[in-house]
Amino acid sequence: MFEKPRGVKDYLPDLAAKLRRIEWRVLETMARWGYRQIITPTLEYYDTVGLASSTANERLFKLLDNKGTTLVLRSEMTAPIARVVASLLKDEALPLRLSHHSNVFRAIEEEAGREWEFFQTGVELVGDGSPEADAEVIALMAECLKAAGVREFKIALGHIGVLSGLLEAALPERPDERQTLRECLLHRNYVGYRAALKGMDLAPGARADLERILRLRGGREACDDALSVVRDDASRAALGHLRDVWDALQVYGVGGHVSIDLTMVGNFSYYTGLIFEGYAAGLGFPLCSGGRYDNLLASFGRPAPATGFALETNRIVLVADDPPEDGRRMLVLYRKHRREEAILHAMALRREKDAAVETVFVPEGTEIGPEADGEGKWRFKGRRYDMVFRFDE
Amino acid sequence: MFEKPRGVKDYLPDLAAKLRRIEWRVLETMARWGYRQIITPTLEYYDTVGLASSTANERLFKLLDNKGTTLVLRSEMTAPIARVVASLLKDEALPLRLSHHSNVFRAIEEEAGREWEFFQTGVELVGDGSPEADAEVIALMAECLKAAGVREFKIALGHIGVLSGLLEAALPERPDERQTLRECLLHRNYVGYRAALKGMDLAPGARADLERILRLRGGREACDDALSVVRDDASRAALGHLRDVWDALQVYGVGGHVSIDLTMVGNFSYYTGLIFEGYAAGLGFPLCSGGRYDNLLASFGRPAPATGFALETNRIVLVADDPPEDGRRMLVLYRKHRREEAILHAMALRREKDAAVETVFVPEGTEIGPEADGEGKWRFKGRRYDMVFRFDE
Repeated sequence: MFEKPRGVKDYLPDLAAKLRRIEWRVLETMARWGYRQIITPTLEYYDTVGLASSTANERLFKLLDNKGTTLVLRSEMTAPIARVVASLLKDEALPLRLSHHSNVFRAIEEEAGREWEFFQTGVELVGDGSPEADAEVIALMAECLKAAGVREFKIALGHIGVLSGLLEAALPERPDERQTLRECLLHRNYVGYRAALKGMDLAPGARADLERILRLRGGREACDDALSVVRDDASRAALGHLRDVWDALQVYGVGGHVSIDLTMVGNFSYYTGLIFEGYAAGLGFPLCSGGRYDNLLASFGRPAPATGFALETNRIVLVADDPPEDGRRMLVLYRKHRREEAILHAMALRREKDAAVETVFVPEGTEIGPEADGEGKWRFKGRRYDMVFRFDE
Repeated sequence: MFEKPRGVKDYLPDLAAKLRRIEWRVLETMARWGYRQIITPTLEYYDTVGLASSTANERLFKLLDNKGTTLVLRSEMTAPIARVVASLLKDEALPLRLSHHSNVFRAIEEEAGREWEFFQTGVELVGDGSPEADAEVIALMAECLKAAGVREFKIALGHIGVLSGLLEAALPERPDERQTLRECLLHRNYVGYRAALKGMDLAPGARADLERILRLRGGREACDDALSVVRDDASRAALGHLRDVWDALQVYGVGGHVSIDLTMVGNFSYYTGLIFEGYAAGLGFPLCSGGRYDNLLASFGRPAPATGFALETNRIVLVADDPPEDGRRMLVLYRKHRREEAILHAMALRREKDAAVETVFVPEGTEIGPEADGEGKWRFKGRRYDMVFRFDE
């Protein structure tokens, strides 16, 4: 048996068709919201886009070009699109709304259901730092999940600035301990978080504030709770921004899907503000995620605030409720002497009917089949057909 | 300016949309002919699929996995699909009709318009060795070119077996000289071919036969001409097969697009029989190509005859006549105090109209625009909109 590398996957026709239908419906939804698709290359320079993609070095697939320069297989789409916005699209006025559907690559992913190569369908909204922009992309993400056939889902909202403000206020000049707590939150290891707190030398007030972070989850009241903990102006402004996004999401009618979770850390270091993740009922891993990255564009020479998200299309295909389209299959069987009639009939069927039409030449001396399956359909070489046309007499 | 690697390309929205429309129409055409799409991974093992893909070693992008095994970026799709047919699909009865749309990779391509990464949309028909099968995929290729918007095109038919038979009959046990002539034919270097012939020590009959090869081009009569040159049974049978394909193509109504060119060598060493290439008027490079490969499946452990083709979608996008779809763009501008009305209006437009609808929040103190462009449309931040809705009073 010839093997493919572990970590990669073949999509057979039924699954491939479902994946393509979801891709198409999601991109169509994005287009209705004014997002235009771009396509960037699979190969990027390590030193520019590779580093900007903020993917751990050991997770990047690297190779050398013929001049010895290190290339990477793109590991996500935000940095490549930032590169294009700052170069080919540098004369286009902001805000820019761009969408993409891409295969991206990360080695040694250990989460459930993760492969080396996977499909992302996403948007970037570049040049708008308002709460309105955050709300737009979150509401669009909800619409895309619905369009993809995900019936029940939740979107958690966090904020990089709020969490950083809380940790810094309680642990000033103790970056290692802040990092320890961050790591626990990143892996949703709340037991470990509490254990780490126990081992730290803290004033009672700081200890209480750090314990309270774990409870900063829920509805709009989580923002109010947080307001009573944070003291610095930046964090208070960030909480105001988050509350504004929350209100706008009610207008979009997706309030029932969102909740606040200020323990969220975000899985890209380029995130600077509001971040979010979408989950389907009963699934342990996110189906989609995104966030604000107001500094990334500057590293490509065109400073601009930006936000966006990516749907993990090959995870969504596993949970989407997607009744396969009822495409009819037809079979045209023929002997050599009636080839012309058979081919012309098949060509007419393809033009006039919404059906997939196969022609099969059956040599003289071979049984022509097909068998009725007793349910009004036909069976030929193990496959089912809705209609069969014979040209053999 | 942040550069991408040379040899790769960004597709901005207009071009990306055209590429995606062509991809969609071509795959839809293939589906009507009974071909079902599969998706295989970008990364394959060098030792299996990499070698079977018959791409020159220096043109393969190679990298190592974390166990030190050499991987390649797929350089074409026929070998990966053969791997799947012989493994995951091994219990499916033949013939199998499969389609794909994929990005493939080849380094240091020097032909005009060639990139490291390019898009192929193709089919494989596995398990049918008849002239009917060859005619089906060639007729389907013609349909796909039409569906893609290529108005004028020609398809040249050649035959690996016929050419080999002619060269071997004239140059028995002189493989180096046969190879020299083949190389000239591969690069369509007919001047070089004649010069090479001059330098060879040949009997007058053999010399005349080798000169005649260059004239074995045209309609069905080229087969008859070839029949008067070939002496071995295998070549005579191959010519009979080619003539049968020619006749079937008349039935499909694509006779006006095809011609015979027995000087064609084919660019994959796995080809065993009929080969073909499609050209648009005035273009020096092929838009698509394919051929029969009756031995490749055996190397994956499931012997079966097969044929197929691939369209070079990113070449077709340059010549296709594709009037852009007349999608309307609408703009909803609003101030904070009318956010709810504006968002609800935009949501309704997205549901009810076939339009792309952007919402833009305009802070107090900022001029709201937009400007009428004098042609019944509106201009806002350098972009044109068919309709503008203002929520600012």
